[in-house]
Amino acid sequence: MMKSGIDDHLYAVIMAGGSGTRFWPRSRTDRPKQLLNITGDEILLKKTIELIKPIIPISRIKIATTLSQADAVQRTVPEISGESIIGEPLGKNTAPAIGTSTLFVERDDPDAIMIVLPSDHYIEDKEKFHQRIMAGAYQASQGDFLVTIGIPPRGPETGYGYIEAGTLIDKDNVIYAVKSFHEKPDINTARRFVNQGNFFWNSGIFIAKASTMLREIAEYLPHNYRWLVKIRSSLGKDEESGVITEAYKEMEAISIDYGVIEKSKNVLMVAGDFGWSDVGSWPSAAQYWPRDRNNNAFIGELINLDSSQCIVYSPKKPVALVGAEDLVIVEEDDVLLVCKRERSQDVRKLVEILKSQGRDKIL
Amino acid sequence: MMKSGIDDHLYAVIMAGGSGTRFWPRSRTDRPKQLLNITGDEILLKKTIELIKPIIPISRIKIATTLSQADAVQRTVPEISGESIIGEPLGKNTAPAIGTSTLFVERDDPDAIMIVLPSDHYIEDKEKFHQRIMAGAYQASQGDFLVTIGIPPRGPETGYGYIEAGTLIDKDNVIYAVKSFHEKPDINTARRFVNQGNFFWNSGIFIAKASTMLREIAEYLPHNYRWLVKIRSSLGKDEESGVITEAYKEMEAISIDYGVIEKSKNVLMVAGDFGWSDVGSWPSAAQYWPRDRNNNAFIGELINLDSSQCIVYSPKKPVALVGAEDLVIVEEDDVLLVCKRERSQDVRKLVEILKSQGRDKIL
Repeated sequence: MMKSGIDDHLYAVIMAGGSGTRFWPRSRTDRPKQLLNITGDEILLKKTIELIKPIIPISRIKIATTLSQADAVQRTVPEISGESIIGEPLGKNTAPAIGTSTLFVERDDPDAIMIVLPSDHYIEDKEKFHQRIMAGAYQASQGDFLVTIGIPPRGPETGYGYIEAGTLIDKDNVIYAVKSFHEKPDINTARRFVNQGNFFWNSGIFIAKASTMLREIAEYLPHNYRWLVKIRSSLGKDEESGVITEAYKEMEAISIDYGVIEKSKNVLMVAGDFGWSDVGSWPSAAQYWPRDRNNNAFIGELINLDSSQCIVYSPKKPVALVGAEDLVIVEEDDVLLVCKRERSQDVRKLVEILKSQGRDKIL
Repeated sequence: MMKSGIDDHLYAVIMAGGSGTRFWPRSRTDRPKQLLNITGDEILLKKTIELIKPIIPISRIKIATTLSQADAVQRTVPEISGESIIGEPLGKNTAPAIGTSTLFVERDDPDAIMIVLPSDHYIEDKEKFHQRIMAGAYQASQGDFLVTIGIPPRGPETGYGYIEAGTLIDKDNVIYAVKSFHEKPDINTARRFVNQGNFFWNSGIFIAKASTMLREIAEYLPHNYRWLVKIRSSLGKDEESGVITEAYKEMEAISIDYGVIEKSKNVLMVAGDFGWSDVGSWPSAAQYWPRDRNNNAFIGELINLDSSQCIVYSPKKPVALVGAEDLVIVEEDDVLLVCKRERSQDVRKLVEILKSQGRDKIL
């Protein structure tokens, strides 16, 4: 499986700066989704490290997070050295985070090849994942490519961006040229994409040489790049954190997809046929939970009379359901959530409302 | 309002031996419904005492309950003397309880007139209630009558027994002769009853002289009566509690309605047009709770996004609802209930299941 010569240059940058408000009240300001065990087996960030460890040693795994979450991240994954945890002073979407992380990778190894991946997804077939990532990394090493991972769609989802694949350039490793990117579509467009067969979900995982990444940022986000250059010169010096803080105030808040990848002319895509889920809301997390014969998924104890299709997270106390259907129930010490299953995405809205009301105690 | 001569002979017997499993998990084996504040203002038993106090002094109010609940009853209503709390060694339905209570009333006053009433109902117009009860008591004093209270039906309820009223014998006090009693009907029969206009819900409240009550029991439940005679001779003696225990083992478990009142030839009915609810399940209790503009009734704090018609009892922690409809949610320290509103009656079934599983800790 391993391609000669690149193994020692592989780095991972795990993006762990999100909040995951759709998992409220389990997720909180100081307890974001990636630091939770919401799939029922292990904390998501730990799982991502376990996932990547067989191909990239711990010493070459970096975690991009916010300064406010850095301590919690460190406590959660003590095996990662403090130096490898990159704390952003401000949330500015993914382009500044990835740009800054790339500088730290480049400092360690100018010939580095980076795997950038979220901290909060679920991969079923880990071996296949390793194969595809290694193939992508090899491809990235052969030129100035941004290699994305596209997920074969399981349905006309409107919650993902889509990648339109062009020419198949490596049949064994299912690597394609990329024709175009599409923002989250409406349902009819999504159906057309899925029927067409050459559209994939954008997983947010991508691979590039550190040097390629910086060159692409220089090309498409020159303002941000000028600040990255300043950070680069400050690294390891007294002024480092001051410069980073200043840079974060100034850099444009934009996603790496929208700001760089979708504009780049050197994008490839590896088909991520390894069973992927973004663990985006309670129903997707609950896919991995125990179930009763009425298709209720639960963590904790369920007492059921004629209830079905419910999702119950209540590790501390039993939950009795009578005639309940299609509900998400999340029990916390200080607040209880009951949500219609089809409204799971709107938990995020509820959190916005609570924020606007200054309900910090339960946020 | 007061009728001369009977006031000093009025006694109340409050029936407080039930469990109220339809209010689980708020109600528990050692915390039955009548000892709970489920209407949001006051504990039901306390409310019933407050209700009756203006017409019957505390010293003439007796409470029939189970021995196992007697201590909790005493703690809840310390103003009632221990001697007035009659603890049954076994639950044997209402006929033995009322028979035994009548003996204690008779001992205090052989000319007593008893108001027998449940501990767990809700009366809106207290003054009207007092008027109707006093009229019924006066009527009871004029002969050997069992005077029931019939509630003008608000709809074709199938959960109540019905009283068919005959001749109006006192227009001012809306007192009727009773033609017949009907067990809980099916829906079509209930509709016919309501349309006919002379059918009333059986409230479980009735009034009779103690002597009349005992004579009627002697007539229709002679086996029970023989044991009541033995209890009567034991009262105040060392053997009292032993005889009561023996009698309870032997007496027939039967309701006073089915065993006596429905068979009696001397039954009258006063129309109970004072706003009555039996507080029989969460939706009927929640009628008296605060409501938001989406018709959610709640005790505790509700955080609502697009939810309606829910009933939320959670005094200790806020409950957030997203797109929830027609649910009953009851939060307790050791268990949580989520029930479809229309299935509220089936909470009782759930409790039966838990009993059969030996889940005593949460019962």
